[in-house]
Amino acid sequence: MQIETLITEVFSKVKEQFIEVEASGRHIHLNRTAIDQLFGEGYQLTKNRELSQPGQFVCKERLTIIGPKGKFENVVILGPERKDSQVEVSLTDAVTLGIKAPVRESGNIFGTPSIILKSPIAKIMLPNGVIAAKRHIHVSPEDAKRFKLEDKEIVQVKVYGSRPLIFDDVLVRVSEKYRTYMHIDYDEANACGFSKGTLGRIIKNGA
Amino acid sequence: MQIETLITEVFSKVKEQFIEVEASGRHIHLNRTAIDQLFGEGYQLTKNRELSQPGQFVCKERLTIIGPKGKFENVVILGPERKDSQVEVSLTDAVTLGIKAPVRESGNIFGTPSIILKSPIAKIMLPNGVIAAKRHIHVSPEDAKRFKLEDKEIVQVKVYGSRPLIFDDVLVRVSEKYRTYMHIDYDEANACGFSKGTLGRIIKNGA
Repeated sequence: MQIETLITEVFSKVKEQFIEVEASGRHIHLNRTAIDQLFGEGYQLTKNRELSQPGQFVCKERLTIIGPKGKFENVVILGPERKDSQVEVSLTDAVTLGIKAPVRESGNIFGTPSIILKSPIAKIMLPNGVIAAKRHIHVSPEDAKRFKLEDKEIVQVKVYGSRPLIFDDVLVRVSEKYRTYMHIDYDEANACGFSKGTLGRIIKNGA
Repeated sequence: MQIETLITEVFSKVKEQFIEVEASGRHIHLNRTAIDQLFGEGYQLTKNRELSQPGQFVCKERLTIIGPKGKFENVVILGPERKDSQVEVSLTDAVTLGIKAPVRESGNIFGTPSIILKSPIAKIMLPNGVIAAKRHIHVSPEDAKRFKLEDKEIVQVKVYGSRPLIFDDVLVRVSEKYRTYMHIDYDEANACGFSKGTLGRIIKNGA
């Protein structure tokens, strides 16, 4: 085999790339109805700081989330408002709340459990919307091209935290609205020894 | 290449085996001094139920563990008594307690943080002993031979939970005192979607 052919072949097999990992704590997305009920008709959520994903932000407002067995106070709301309200928790949180949260892709809340939300002026029951977020990678179209990734592709990601592991079954989402980051929850963050700046390497062909 | 040579080669490369995974919740090991202080001179811990590892058991007695930021009540004590007292928590627990628990192999407590233990009759400060247990596999000598594993070897384990992942940097401990089980903590259990009976497959050659 000629050297150049070999190099070409090796390069074509190196389908591994590094991305930055972020850990998401428990948080709430609200729709217009819920904001009206919890903060008053026409209320606008206040931006506290921006998130890595363009247009997404942490709000100053906080809520208490209440389940049959426990509650969490001061839970952050992420803006902007959405079509559907949704509460994302870790499975550890779910045990504390006494709610069986299914692992779902964000937005896919059909048939998910209910929860109570409490603001300083109101207490409402969301009929559904409690999920543990399925781990995923947001990818910009440019990076998708560079990394040879397609929307809805499933990859593995080796995470270089202090407790190294390889996440299997990681969902890739490609959109012009995204910057490239992998998102995991705090159970997953603790399981891999995550700290800010932890990197992951995409493995496309499995182990 | 002859068929038999090929088969031999393939078999020698199949170094993957299934083992049962168990998730360990937060728990306490006590030495004689701590038992005397917490329950009275010469007190004997009461066996509630046996664990998978021969001779190890859950005690009826429970303790409250207290850190600078939070506490957990009704924490199980595992018997029999040990040379050193030790408190094993998840990193999620460690945040609640306000204690920076290092990831360590059980028994390796030099320089680890302190914690307060409270029984119905006493409250004592352990000068050290708080760890998050490093994930590991207990292996019987027979299984070690069958799986071709050596004591202190590091392997990967693919875990077939509802959120599949591959744990890297898994410590193998071989002893006549052991039955073959992989032990992970509840952060790791939640990260892989563990449920009772979840299986893992040892991968010896890396990904």
